[in-house]
Amino acid sequence: MSDHLTHFDAEGRAVMVDVGGKTDTRRLAIAHGEIRMKESTLTRILDRDVEKGDVFAVARVAGIMGAKKTPDLIPLCHPLPIGSIQLDFTPRPGAGRVEIEARVSVDGKTGVEMEALTAVSTAALTIYDMCKAVDREMEIGAIRLMEKHGGKSGTFIRAREDAS
Amino acid sequence: MSDHLTHFDAEGRAVMVDVGGKTDTRRLAIAHGEIRMKESTLTRILDRDVEKGDVFAVARVAGIMGAKKTPDLIPLCHPLPIGSIQLDFTPRPGAGRVEIEARVSVDGKTGVEMEALTAVSTAALTIYDMCKAVDREMEIGAIRLMEKHGGKSGTFIRAREDAS
Amino acid sequence: MSDHLTHFDAEGRAVMVDVGGKTDTRRLAIAHGEIRMKESTLTRILDRDVEKGDVFAVARVAGIMGAKKTPDLIPLCHPLPIGSIQLDFTPRPGAGRVEIEARVSVDGKTGVEMEALTAVSTAALTIYDMCKAVDREMEIGAIRLMEKHGGKSGTFIRAREDAS
Amino acid sequence: MSDHLTHFDAEGRAVMVDVGGKTDTRRLAIAHGEIRMKESTLTRILDRDVEKGDVFAVARVAGIMGAKKTPDLIPLCHPLPIGSIQLDFTPRPGAGRVEIEARVSVDGKTGVEMEALTAVSTAALTIYDMCKAVDREMEIGAIRLMEKHGGKSGTFIRAREDAS
Amino acid sequence: MSDHLTHFDAEGRAVMVDVGGKTDTRRLAIAHGEIRMKESTLTRILDRDVEKGDVFAVARVAGIMGAKKTPDLIPLCHPLPIGSIQLDFTPRPGAGRVEIEARVSVDGKTGVEMEALTAVSTAALTIYDMCKAVDREMEIGAIRLMEKHGGKSGTFIRAREDAS
Amino acid sequence: MSDHLTHFDAEGRAVMVDVGGKTDTRRLAIAHGEIRMKESTLTRILDRDVEKGDVFAVARVAGIMGAKKTPDLIPLCHPLPIGSIQLDFTPRPGAGRVEIEARVSVDGKTGVEMEALTAVSTAALTIYDMCKAVDREMEIGAIRLMEKHGGKSGTFIRAREDAS
Repeated sequence: MSDHLTHFDAEGRAVMVDVGGKTDTRRLAIAHGEIRMKESTLTRILDRDVEKGDVFAVARVAGIMGAKKTPDLIPLCHPLPIGSIQLDFTPRPGAGRVEIEARVSVDGKTGVEMEALTAVSTAALTIYDMCKAVDREMEIGAIRLMEKHGGKSGTFIRAREDAS
Repeated sequence: MSDHLTHFDAEGRAVMVDVGGKTDTRRLAIAHGEIRMKESTLTRILDRDVEKGDVFAVARVAGIMGAKKTPDLIPLCHPLPIGSIQLDFTPRPGAGRVEIEARVSVDGKTGVEMEALTAVSTAALTIYDMCKAVDREMEIGAIRLMEKHGGKSGTFIRAREDAS
Repeated sequence: MSDHLTHFDAEGRAVMVDVGGKTDTRRLAIAHGEIRMKESTLTRILDRDVEKGDVFAVARVAGIMGAKKTPDLIPLCHPLPIGSIQLDFTPRPGAGRVEIEARVSVDGKTGVEMEALTAVSTAALTIYDMCKAVDREMEIGAIRLMEKHGGKSGTFIRAREDAS
Repeated sequence: MSDHLTHFDAEGRAVMVDVGGKTDTRRLAIAHGEIRMKESTLTRILDRDVEKGDVFAVARVAGIMGAKKTPDLIPLCHPLPIGSIQLDFTPRPGAGRVEIEARVSVDGKTGVEMEALTAVSTAALTIYDMCKAVDREMEIGAIRLMEKHGGKSGTFIRAREDAS
Repeated sequence: MSDHLTHFDAEGRAVMVDVGGKTDTRRLAIAHGEIRMKESTLTRILDRDVEKGDVFAVARVAGIMGAKKTPDLIPLCHPLPIGSIQLDFTPRPGAGRVEIEARVSVDGKTGVEMEALTAVSTAALTIYDMCKAVDREMEIGAIRLMEKHGGKSGTFIRAREDAS
Repeated sequence: MSDHLTHFDAEGRAVMVDVGGKTDTRRLAIAHGEIRMKESTLTRILDRDVEKGDVFAVARVAGIMGAKKTPDLIPLCHPLPIGSIQLDFTPRPGAGRVEIEARVSVDGKTGVEMEALTAVSTAALTIYDMCKAVDREMEIGAIRLMEKHGGKSGTFIRAREDAS
């Protein structure tokens, strides 16, 4: 880990840090998140007799496209030639929530943590948007980095027990 | 509330629903969220003797610009002539977290809940990005709609006690 | 109809024409298009025992989001607060093609023909992208305006017999 | 050719496929398309005594910029550092149509077919937009890949006689 | 004029100011700018025997499209349904410069000064880009608001003699 | 230097020139610009007893994000994986102006002059936007390339005495 916030210079000015000296290496990031909702809302998403449409199919496309917009959204993020994006939704009927996982990889000079986190966030917001007519009290949470591989700082694997 | 997911038609196809019959009314949405971090990370953000830069100033700009990108990010959202956006950060030293509030208003045909939620999400992701060199275990959560005013469905105020 | 190309001024300079004197009226545009492919490709799209994924679900989201990007893509198009977007795919097994229909409406000062045509084009390109690994010879065609309602120039309905 | 749609995983979920194992190679794609119009419309485009403005100059810029937006438009497309884009318009007076050709190259891990097809589509839509005040019945068609060079799947050259 | 910077609140936080109480009125802004270059560069732009291409045609399209991107570029700018955009280039052979004028209008709640200034800037940058292979020392300057009509603050006309 | 405008082909058609034969080398560009304003406006920006907000912090974020949008704004610019962006503001109290410097680097096939110039322009426009409520007569100028390193054309350093 660094001992200071690398996105400021010595004068406290925000900078996009220089990745010029870095080499292209294979990098992977996995992020998780969830959206909590009424059990009846989750049933509506899952039971195709109730609703014919596929909420997750739309949210998956939104999350993938959102990951590609990361450098447009996050001011100090580097543009990256993303190599792959996968998004997975695991509904937890009975627990009133949907878990979201994004995996993003690149052969590049910087990591793809922000791309994975942005994919999860955008997918969660899309689920919220599609269900808000029946449930305004949904809550998006537990958005966090689970794993990170590649690059100078090496592998990070989050201890799973602190998942909310 | 509606009794079905309005973003699908009778055949289950995703649609951008028609707001053509609606009138322009004043609408306001307030969304909250938070980012949890190590106490030492929060100190670093707050103590200008440690870091000269202002993380919240960057995150605020990102959140405001993110709100304007909502229809680009959320597939079935309508483009809207947003009237105002405000973003507020309340650090909770001792509790290891920063609370984020976004207020968005419009004179329009649809509400601005998604714009407010997107502002909060983008600001939280920006804080994550700026601090991730010192703390990879931050967690973004409690993103939810607090209030909504205007439009046919009228006023919604979330019961405050269920805030996580 | 106009008797000249309205997107040039008297000196031949491209301009975004002034819609300032116009009133907001209800406008609707319907555009059609198609993508021709090998029969085996179409079978692959339609038979969920062959491919589990839903090509049209992805293409529909792409088409809706593409319609919203119209003023970003078409230089002299006005930005518009689109009121609704619907996209429909009609596969023609035996004929080796998928027909695409987009309907876009707005309460605005200009029409939404370009938005409907852009929705069709983007959806067709997305189908091409998703199927190109098995069929490089697909062909996108017959992209045309079918109907237009509202605005000073009134209603236009294309004679259906000239559809390719 | 692949024997399945590579943009879905085994569960039928849309994915941006992993190009991580691929090497950067020189790739080129050539796409064609056309826009059919009334002879009088084509004359108007071509005869600078009738209209002083240059429709093709505007459409060329739109097509080049559209190619750069491909990963923003097509959900599962990879972002690519495009190396070159050329757009050519061949009017066919007497036949009432304009042929459009786009050539796109890259040194990259994936091909640029979608970029070339998007360039053609965007240019055709721009011509439609600029001429629609005098001709609503124009039709965009014959958008197809003509050639593709480089990458694992090697060279593809479309048989020219099946051009519509 | 205001007596303070309206884009900060009382706590010094950047805000997108509320235009909710405002009515839609006709607004117009005119901005000027220029790009200075070697006389030989200007000759190259103007003499079609030297260069066949039309630099101004490309820069005009870029400027019009740039004006539409203003709320994406300028953090606290409101999105606006721009009504018209015109861009004009006046070469000054002998003086080694090209003058640029943008006129933007809207029926809206806020003015279009930023859209006009962004149009001029983007057009100037595009000229720079197109000519930089022959002249790296071009200089963009004198970007300023010339006129503004409509809205609560009324008409502003810049004294012409202070043009640089 | 080239002896012709490289952005046109032999027929005068605008092209995105081919960088396919080029190798990735380290490139750096430094651009300058300034915004002139009333002395009282500059005081307002600088004196935190007058205005609590930090105009430069917002303009810095806007400039960095603007640099990343360069290929979206400038029609014939190549998309580039920017390596670093820094923006600096030097107020000149007494002289009524703020000087702006942008430094952009990349390991790439083309230079980053346009990215540096776009960063300066966007930052200047943002300062204009934030101060226009108190000063409409600000003027943006002296936007020019100061240094350029790397690439086939080698190093360029502008003679400093011609700075306006």
